[in-house]
Amino acid sequence: MKFLKELLQNMLPITESEWDIIRNVIIEKRINPKEQLINDGQIAKAIYFVKDGLLRVYHLKDGKEITTYFSSDGLFISTYSSFITQKPTFEILEAIEESIVYEFSYQALNNLYQLDPKFEKIGRYLAEQNYLCIFERTLSMQTKTAKEKYLDFITTNHPKIVQRAPQHQIASFLGIAPESLSRIRREIVIS
Amino acid sequence: MKFLKELLQNMLPITESEWDIIRNVIIEKRINPKEQLINDGQIAKAIYFVKDGLLRVYHLKDGKEITTYFSSDGLFISTYSSFITQKPTFEILEAIEESIVYEFSYQALNNLYQLDPKFEKIGRYLAEQNYLCIFERTLSMQTKTAKEKYLDFITTNHPKIVQRAPQHQIASFLGIAPESLSRIRREIVIS
Repeated sequence: MKFLKELLQNMLPITESEWDIIRNVIIEKRINPKEQLINDGQIAKAIYFVKDGLLRVYHLKDGKEITTYFSSDGLFISTYSSFITQKPTFEILEAIEESIVYEFSYQALNNLYQLDPKFEKIGRYLAEQNYLCIFERTLSMQTKTAKEKYLDFITTNHPKIVQRAPQHQIASFLGIAPESLSRIRREIVIS
Repeated sequence: MKFLKELLQNMLPITESEWDIIRNVIIEKRINPKEQLINDGQIAKAIYFVKDGLLRVYHLKDGKEITTYFSSDGLFISTYSSFITQKPTFEILEAIEESIVYEFSYQALNNLYQLDPKFEKIGRYLAEQNYLCIFERTLSMQTKTAKEKYLDFITTNHPKIVQRAPQHQIASFLGIAPESLSRIRREIVIS
């Protein structure tokens, strides 16, 4: 849990005894490819920190999977709207590859806020990062060409996401046709 | 500042002396229709709580104005991505009608976090509300018909926004053509 400890300690001062409390509420989980941590119709009871792996959030639209979020080593993931509101989600959180994640429950996070309000900063960080992520994606969808979107994607995402997420999932994430993505990738390799 | 005080007190316990500190860093501003609080290229140095008025955030795309956020009495507004990152925005925050707002500077908010970490909860609230807002809009844009989008809009927004925001601004907010919006409005009135 070294990465997570460092990330939190960069955010706010945490004593060793506080870290013990945090560590004790975190559950390490190993999940298989295609295994689901949160399913359509469920309430997101937890947020996950990825120790090692590759995961995504998607939903179904007219029978097709639309990927809206990728996560990998050192990043968080949840069906975040449902996590904030504690209402059922229409989204699915699924592993793309075998992954190890640290599960941080909604209850545990709220207990930390109660224990010491300084932990609210973790909640603010999560909310702000999630906001920036959806803001950039929405903006990119609305204002950029397919090629610009893909170039943005490969320069701003974790290398594991760029290199190992299936192309059809990346295409739906960028809101472009899989054939267009193949053409763009060929153009980039050639040029 | 009664509304704002109540909103904050519903969020977290605030003593009278703490409220005095908050009240002293807030600046009341009166702005005219079409007057801009934040402009393209600037850094969003503040977030605003609307005491009375109607405002929006928009950006230009191919010379056309795309409205991405409306705000009115009792709601917050900023070019929020720029507010979090303190990097220049491409967006414009403008009054639609004469408005009175309470300006809450980035610096003042961060001073509050330093004063007592419990105020982080205000930052978390702002970030979570902004996340939910952009999440709902993005989802609606991607999954709903024009009529569904408009019905959602009129049932979930402040009456002042629904009744008084110009139709072409609402159309761009919903991502539908102004003519489609006119047709939908006629259909709803008739049915």
